[in-house]
Amino acid sequence: MKAIVILSGGMDSAVVLAHACSMYESKHVVALTFDYGQRHAKEINAAKDLARFYNVEHIIFAVDLTQIGGSALTDKSISVPEFKKDLRKSDHVALSYVPMRNTIFIAIAAAFAEVLGIQEIYTGFNWIDSGGYPDTRKSYVNAINRMLSIGSRDRPKVFAPLIHMTKVQIVKYGEQLHVPWHLSWSCYEGNQHPCGKCNACIQREKGFRGANVNDPVVKRWK
Amino acid sequence: MKAIVILSGGMDSAVVLAHACSMYESKHVVALTFDYGQRHAKEINAAKDLARFYNVEHIIFAVDLTQIGGSALTDKSISVPEFKKDLRKSDHVALSYVPMRNTIFIAIAAAFAEVLGIQEIYTGFNWIDSGGYPDTRKSYVNAINRMLSIGSRDRPKVFAPLIHMTKVQIVKYGEQLHVPWHLSWSCYEGNQHPCGKCNACIQREKGFRGANVNDPVVKRWK
Repeated sequence: MKAIVILSGGMDSAVVLAHACSMYESKHVVALTFDYGQRHAKEINAAKDLARFYNVEHIIFAVDLTQIGGSALTDKSISVPEFKKDLRKSDHVALSYVPMRNTIFIAIAAAFAEVLGIQEIYTGFNWIDSGGYPDTRKSYVNAINRMLSIGSRDRPKVFAPLIHMTKVQIVKYGEQLHVPWHLSWSCYEGNQHPCGKCNACIQREKGFRGANVNDPVVKRWK
Repeated sequence: MKAIVILSGGMDSAVVLAHACSMYESKHVVALTFDYGQRHAKEINAAKDLARFYNVEHIIFAVDLTQIGGSALTDKSISVPEFKKDLRKSDHVALSYVPMRNTIFIAIAAAFAEVLGIQEIYTGFNWIDSGGYPDTRKSYVNAINRMLSIGSRDRPKVFAPLIHMTKVQIVKYGEQLHVPWHLSWSCYEGNQHPCGKCNACIQREKGFRGANVNDPVVKRWK
């Protein structure tokens, strides 16, 4: 095994899975999805479809972050905010920020990496258009890698191939890789149709519109 | 709330809980214990007893690390090694090392810290006599704190007041704080009696013997 891909089922991690499968044979790639009590559990099905499409092993790890709460995505008492409200909180961190989610996920991915003998952990982190999450920046990835180089047995490393890309660039790169967009799911609400109003929907639309690509997910549900 | 203490129920975290309660009123301290599928689930009961003794709020977070395996503590197919075998593995990391456990726990503790408005996370990490775990060193704590200062919303910080202490020093410090040792549990086996052979038992014995203190847990079961 060569690479573990943290696969949410959204557009970014779909591109990263395609990226990993462009470098390695599918038998050397494993996808890791978290069932963390997210409101949009529908994305887990999207992840399953994507893993099946790329013919990679798929681990679904259950960790119930609703035990912690504190986010619109894991606490049913907090509504998913519309895009502008989400990002206009006074401390500049989005209401849809799930406390420490990415660090929890990377730590668990690194544990699997150690057990499976894998050195490379791929994530879809991107900063420019992701909207105010502190745990998607290049400096964060560097700090996590420093921590892993000290505090793990096998020193796996986190890669974030999309980190300097805008959403438009991510869609363009995904097009080059022939990502099956129709299998991905982004909307935080997780209802039958994308809401078109949450941060994830707005950023997704921005990417596809800017890249002049039709988003089959939106089209499918309109 | 001022402090969150990661409380396993073992001797080190018992001392750290006492340390936190010597600084803050018990209503400002919360203990966090992980039910992670450990072989010695008995330590969770020890943690409950300790939290009750110190009259602090107690959160038990469930995250099933047997989904990952790879350690004598979370994989029933791997026997708990005797002390010497545990530490003589060729790569110098103990068989009882649970992949990325401390990082997973700190990430979750930091998430609770953010939700509860807490800035300080206390751990019982100590390096000198802990026996070859990479994630208990001062350099690891520094790296984790750097990561938290970048990748979290509220930048909680990890404190490891025992990190430069030997087991003997930890017992002596615990004596000063009047730690109720009889409520703690260390043995990895988690049977009725401490096995007296695993890394945890050996280190515990070393500490009490060196400090010239009777360990009521061992006495109780002998």
